[in-house]
Amino acid sequence: SKRYSITLLPGDGIGPEVISVAKHVLNLAGSLEGIEFNFQEMPMGGSALDLVGVPLPEETLSAAKKSDAVLLGAIGGYKWDKNEKHLKPETGLLQLREGLRVFANLRPATVLPQLVDASTLKKEVAEGVDLMVVRELTGGIYFGKPRGFSTNEDGEEIGFNTEVYATYEVDRIARVAFETARKRHGKLCSVDKANVLEASMFWRKRVIAVAAEYPDVELSHMYVDNAAMQLVRNPKQFDTIVTNNIFGDILSDEASMITGSIGMLPSASLGSSGPGLFEPIHGSAPDIANQDKANPLATVLSAAMLLKYGLGEENAAKRIENAVLDTLNKGFRTGDIYSAGNKLVGCKEMGEEVLKSV
Amino acid sequence: SKRYSITLLPGDGIGPEVISVAKHVLNLAGSLEGIEFNFQEMPMGGSALDLVGVPLPEETLSAAKKSDAVLLGAIGGYKWDKNEKHLKPETGLLQLREGLRVFANLRPATVLPQLVDASTLKKEVAEGVDLMVVRELTGGIYFGKPRGFSTNEDGEEIGFNTEVYATYEVDRIARVAFETARKRHGKLCSVDKANVLEASMFWRKRVIAVAAEYPDVELSHMYVDNAAMQLVRNPKQFDTIVTNNIFGDILSDEASMITGSIGMLPSASLGSSGPGLFEPIHGSAPDIANQDKANPLATVLSAAMLLKYGLGEENAAKRIENAVLDTLNKGFRTGDIYSAGNKLVGCKEMGEEVLKSV
Ligand SMILES: CC(C)[C@H](C(=O)O)[C@@H](O)C(=O)O
Ligand SMILES: CC(C)[C@H](C(=O)O)[C@@H](O)C(=O)O
Repeated sequence: SKRYSITLLPGDGIGPEVISVAKHVLNLAGSLEGIEFNFQEMPMGGSALDLVGVPLPEETLSAAKKSDAVLLGAIGGYKWDKNEKHLKPETGLLQLREGLRVFANLRPATVLPQLVDASTLKKEVAEGVDLMVVRELTGGIYFGKPRGFSTNEDGEEIGFNTEVYATYEVDRIARVAFETARKRHGKLCSVDKANVLEASMFWRKRVIAVAAEYPDVELSHMYVDNAAMQLVRNPKQFDTIVTNNIFGDILSDEASMITGSIGMLPSASLGSSGPGLFEPIHGSAPDIANQDKANPLATVLSAAMLLKYGLGEENAAKRIENAVLDTLNKGFRTGDIYSAGNKLVGCKEMGEEVLKSV
Repeated sequence: SKRYSITLLPGDGIGPEVISVAKHVLNLAGSLEGIEFNFQEMPMGGSALDLVGVPLPEETLSAAKKSDAVLLGAIGGYKWDKNEKHLKPETGLLQLREGLRVFANLRPATVLPQLVDASTLKKEVAEGVDLMVVRELTGGIYFGKPRGFSTNEDGEEIGFNTEVYATYEVDRIARVAFETARKRHGKLCSVDKANVLEASMFWRKRVIAVAAEYPDVELSHMYVDNAAMQLVRNPKQFDTIVTNNIFGDILSDEASMITGSIGMLPSASLGSSGPGLFEPIHGSAPDIANQDKANPLATVLSAAMLLKYGLGEENAAKRIENAVLDTLNKGFRTGDIYSAGNKLVGCKEMGEEVLKSV
C-alpha cells in the first residue's frame, strides 16, 4: 500500500477543529484506496508565537518541506493583531509560502446548486458560477524589494513597496493557468492594470508569449478594476482567471464572497516540485473557536485538493468531493450555510456525516 | 450675476453626447440661480490624439488650469488600445489629474429606490446602499518612481513599479475623507493591506494620527481583500471609505457595479486649490457612440457635483439632483437602466426631460 507523509498545521481559532475533521476524512478515503498517511502536527501562526515566539518555527518549515503535502487550518486572531510585522501570524504564512516555493495559488469559487441561496447575488446571477482564480503567490508587491520606511528629498517620512515581476515568474504562473484552463473550459482571462503599470505591461507581454504554447486555450485580458466589476455583474462569464499576487488576493476574496459560502471553499498552493500547501480560504474565526460551530467542509475539500493536485490520487479525492455533496444533499448544514428546512449540525457532527459517505 | 468659466472635455465615444446634455442642464440651473457660465470645449483623449498627436495637449491643460472647474465626458476606445503608453488616452487622463493636482477622488455609490432592481444583488442587500469612496488620486503606484523595465541580477527581464506614500499625501487625503464622513453619517473606514505592505502600515499610521483632529468621526480599518468581500456581502455597512489610488480604483468600481447602474454615477476630483475635475465614472462606450443611446445622467450628476464641490453653488446643484430624481420618478429610462413599465428614451430626450424639471 502507498504511504504519504502529511504535515498538519492546525494553527489558530477554528483551525484545530477543522483540521481534526479533515484528518479523519483523509484517513478513511485513503484506506479505501489503499493509501496510508503519516500525519505530523506542527505549530504555526499565533499558537507558534505563544509557544516558541515566532510565527513559523524552523522545525515546522523543515518538517513541511520533507513531507509530501501540507494541510493548514487557519491562522491569526485579535490577540496578535498589534504585533510587529515579524511577529504577526500572517508573516508566518508568507514565510511558509516562500519557504515551500508555492508560487501558484489555485482558488476555485463554485456555487453549488444546494447553496445558491447563500449568495447575496440574485439567483439567476449566482447559479452555475464555477470559476478558478490562479493567483501568483510568491512574487509581486508581497515580496518585492526595496520596501520599508524612509524619508524623501523634502525630509518627509515615506512608506514604500515594490511591485516587480521577472520573466520566469510570469511564465511559470501563466503555464499553470493555461494548464488549469485546458482541464476546465478552455478559457483564460489574465487580469492586470496594463493601462497604467509597467509591471502589468510586462505581465501581459509574457502571458501573450506563453499563450503560443496553448493554442487551444482562449486567452483574454481585463483590467483589474473592470474585473472587480464583472465579478459582480456577471461572474458566469469567467472560467479561469490568472493574476498577480495582490490583485489575486482581492479578486479571489471577492469571487469567494460571490458564492456566499466561503465556509465551503478550499485552496491549493503549488510549486514546481516539493510539497503543496492546502488550506481553506476562510480565516481563523476566533469568535466561534472551540464552540464546535465551524464549517469543516472547506478544509475537507482542501484535503481533496491535496489528494488530487498534491499527490495525484484522483480516486481518493473524488470520494471526498462526492461525500461532501452527499452530505449537503442529505440536508446537513453548519450555521454559516444553514437555511430553513435543513438540519443544523456542529463541526464534529458534520465531519461524522461526511465520513458516512466517503 | 456670478460668472464661472468651465472647461468642457467631451473626449471620446459617448463623451460628446453626454457633455452636450450636461452643458444645457448647467446653463439652465445656473440661469435660475443667477449664475452665468462661460464654456470652453477642448480636445482630450483619443480625439486629441487624432487631432494633434497627444492625449492631453498643452493648450487643454492650461485652459483647464485657468478655468473654475473642468467637466470631462469619457475617454478611450478600441482604436487607441494598442498605442504605446505615452500615446494612450488613459495617459492623458493621468496627466490631467497630475496637472490639476486633484489628489482627492470622491466617488459616491448610491442605490436609488427607483433603480434597486438594476443591481445584481438581492433587493434586501442592495436597497439603501449609500456609500462614498474617497480615493487618493495623484500618488501611490500610479505615479511612484522608480518604474519601468530592466533586467535583474540573473539577466532576466523585469517590469516594476513603486507604491509609495509620504506623510503630506496621506494626511491631506485623510482630512478630505474625515471631512466627507463628517458631512455624511460620521463613519470612516480606511482600507489598506497593512498586514503585508509597509506602504499600508505607513498609510494606517498617518490616518490614525489625523483622526485625532476628528474625534466626532468613527474610524475603522479594513484589509483590502476583506473590503472587496464586504462590499458584496453587506455594502450597507459602509458610509465613507478612504483608500489609496490602486485599491480605490478597484473598490470604487466594484462599489459602482453593486448599485447596478453605473450609467448614473458621478465623480469629483479635488485639489487643495484650483479647479476640480468632474466626470461620470462610466467609460466611453464606443459600441453605442453616436447612436443617441447613452445615459447622460452620470454626467448631469457630475455637473451637480461640480456646482456643489467645485463652485460651492449648493442651490444650483440641488436643482439638478432633484431634476434627475423627478425624471426617474416620471419613469424615463435610457436602455442601460430600463425595466418593464418604464419609458425608454435616448440620450437627448433624457436631457430634455431633465431640463423640464430643473
Ligand atoms: C493573511 C494574508 C497575508 C493573506 C494574503 O494576503 O495573502 C490572506 O489574505 C490570503 O489571501 O491568503
Ligand atoms: C482609465 C484609468 C487610467 C483610470 C484609473 O485607473 O484611474 C480609470 O480606471 C478610473 O478609475 O478613472
